[in-house]
Amino acid sequence: MQELAPDELELAVIVNRSVHRKRVDWIDSAVRWSDDYRDALGDDVDLVVELIGGRSPAEDWIGQALRAGKSVVTANKQVIAHAGHALLEEAARSGQHLRFEAAVAGGVPVVRAIEQGLAGDTLTRVAGILNGTCNYILSRMERERVAFHDALADAQALGFAEADPSQDIEGFDAQAKLAILAQIAFAAHVPAGAIESRRVDVIDAVDFVYAEQMGCTIRQVACAERTSQRGVLKAGVGPSLVPLDSPLARVRGSENLVMLHGRFGGETTFGGLGAGGEPTAVAVLSDLLAVARGGERPATRTPASQIEVSPDFTSAYYVRFTVADRPGIIAALSAVFGRHEINIDAILQQPGFPAGRRPFVVTLDPCSSSAIRQAVNDLSEFDFHGEPPVVLPVFSAASMGVLA
Amino acid sequence: MQELAPDELELAVIVNRSVHRKRVDWIDSAVRWSDDYRDALGDDVDLVVELIGGRSPAEDWIGQALRAGKSVVTANKQVIAHAGHALLEEAARSGQHLRFEAAVAGGVPVVRAIEQGLAGDTLTRVAGILNGTCNYILSRMERERVAFHDALADAQALGFAEADPSQDIEGFDAQAKLAILAQIAFAAHVPAGAIESRRVDVIDAVDFVYAEQMGCTIRQVACAERTSQRGVLKAGVGPSLVPLDSPLARVRGSENLVMLHGRFGGETTFGGLGAGGEPTAVAVLSDLLAVARGGERPATRTPASQIEVSPDFTSAYYVRFTVADRPGIIAALSAVFGRHEINIDAILQQPGFPAGRRPFVVTLDPCSSSAIRQAVNDLSEFDFHGEPPVVLPVFSAASMGVLA
Repeated sequence: MQELAPDELELAVIVNRSVHRKRVDWIDSAVRWSDDYRDALGDDVDLVVELIGGRSPAEDWIGQALRAGKSVVTANKQVIAHAGHALLEEAARSGQHLRFEAAVAGGVPVVRAIEQGLAGDTLTRVAGILNGTCNYILSRMERERVAFHDALADAQALGFAEADPSQDIEGFDAQAKLAILAQIAFAAHVPAGAIESRRVDVIDAVDFVYAEQMGCTIRQVACAERTSQRGVLKAGVGPSLVPLDSPLARVRGSENLVMLHGRFGGETTFGGLGAGGEPTAVAVLSDLLAVARGGERPATRTPASQIEVSPDFTSAYYVRFTVADRPGIIAALSAVFGRHEINIDAILQQPGFPAGRRPFVVTLDPCSSSAIRQAVNDLSEFDFHGEPPVVLPVFSAASMGVLA
Repeated sequence: MQELAPDELELAVIVNRSVHRKRVDWIDSAVRWSDDYRDALGDDVDLVVELIGGRSPAEDWIGQALRAGKSVVTANKQVIAHAGHALLEEAARSGQHLRFEAAVAGGVPVVRAIEQGLAGDTLTRVAGILNGTCNYILSRMERERVAFHDALADAQALGFAEADPSQDIEGFDAQAKLAILAQIAFAAHVPAGAIESRRVDVIDAVDFVYAEQMGCTIRQVACAERTSQRGVLKAGVGPSLVPLDSPLARVRGSENLVMLHGRFGGETTFGGLGAGGEPTAVAVLSDLLAVARGGERPATRTPASQIEVSPDFTSAYYVRFTVADRPGIIAALSAVFGRHEINIDAILQQPGFPAGRRPFVVTLDPCSSSAIRQAVNDLSEFDFHGEPPVVLPVFSAASMGVLA
């Protein structure tokens, strides 16, 4: 990327651990190398780029840089999701920029789209596929009907998943990114930890067979939506059924897609490579240029108040049971769902499975997430389960459906 | 939209023809109404919003406003496509903003994405569906296999097409929008009139049958691409075969989609409503906010040099012949294509048409646009044609394919 370096910017210092082992000869000899972060806070530095990753020590270093009157560009999603609120206030106090386009959706300039391009609209929903690793695995399972752990192993071999993929699979990566998007879209402090997250490795190849019968596929969907109640947001991350005609269904491999719904502008979508060195570098460099060119620091970026994240909402559901087959199971399920005033929409059963471990699917009319939680809890008392039921909301273009 | 009016902005003057008939009581009584444009150039005005449409008198008025030291926000694609270069220079001279997010792709903030969000990349290609009317017609034909003129009549009845749809159908609307996108993506003065444009009403329902056999659909594609030759761009607008797995194939109804290819960031997509009062208002208001908040005036917006637009490029082709059937036609075609060193990939013929007017399709391996033009010209000398051949390039994800 060095060839893109714009005239407005001059590299002054590189800070890294064990910096003596990392020197390269293609960097201008006038650039200082240091393993002491304080060397980045000198008078000759106007702007600090933080690319360490992780909350500590990055969060502390970003704060120090802002207090020293430097602007900061970062790709650090965990810091912005968890401490962005306080750091943005710090930046506003010192009249400096804090920019983080690379923290969400890699090279897709969606942070800027929300802050500026759609500044004239009132956004009501942010939904997206924010984790390329999960999307690689799920779109591979969709295409080849392989098992989750086989698709994961391939993703690891190809470098699309880390050796410890728990941040991706448990949804914490997407949760942090959703918190950042929701913070800027709704101009509110959205605590990332309050966003419910469901793990994606409950999905089996057979779920794609049933999903297809329903005109759907399965994706890890992150979604946050305004409610009619002021100061309350619905938000969640987890595997969901997605209708095949939704833009979310068409996201392949490790791509990301963000869908924004505006009260006036309708739905806009932003897609592209969500990770990787070069797309991330494009986002960081675009932020650097914005600071160098004196770009705006939108008022909306310093949210006024903390928002409450509600886990309660209404959605249609897909529930896969894996049972030791015997008479009366459907009757038992029907009775429990009926007791919670949940209507069964359809029952789907593929042939070809052993009677001792037979998967079948019950689809449910829209119901509240608390009702489905209680019903599934009641169902766990039956002894016919071969494995725990898999409960997936059905994502709807019209309204929210991402939490269980 | 009045409820969105931000504190930073105060409406001073409304200029309109026959303004006395257009006054409304929900506008603050302090606002002046006038039918004289000079009233918008007073000392109490910092910024002029131009929403007249058409080149004259809008172009002159925008120039006057800039020279009077006002910033200008416009939705006028014709003015920006044809005179944007000179007007941006005017704006740079007077240190004012000239913003036009609404001129391309309505509520989709793609102008800003190119100027700022992807400022750190080197863009190599801009492709998109920029005309909602054509896309409404073609996606309707795709779904219902109706005739072009029936789909057009419906579009007119529903307000998606104007009484005189020639700007849409002949491609001049998309041509103007592509010129604007290319100007900012490649930082060059791209003369709109030099972009070749092919009419879309040659498409028949049967083309969708053949396209589907080839794993494709048909869209009006606008595309501009850098060449290896400095200062030379390939660009064109017209109906093209689009593989079903391309994001362009999935654009439905009157939506727009822009795909940007960057050397480092890969492909990013931006989709949404390309027209309509409310999406346009969102784009205009976002521009107003950017000016009010002192947003950057990117250096790239004042292109240095005029670029040459080349009509020559390489693409696979789809050619539909409609013939009075008789022996020897295929042999005759093969001989002509062979003479121009064009390889036939496949010949497709659907049953069920009368022998006097039988459509069949020849698909061709990638060849130069000049070779195909000459070959089709040679073929016109045969007397078996029931109607002129329909020649469509096949859009490729990897390289350009939009001109015939």
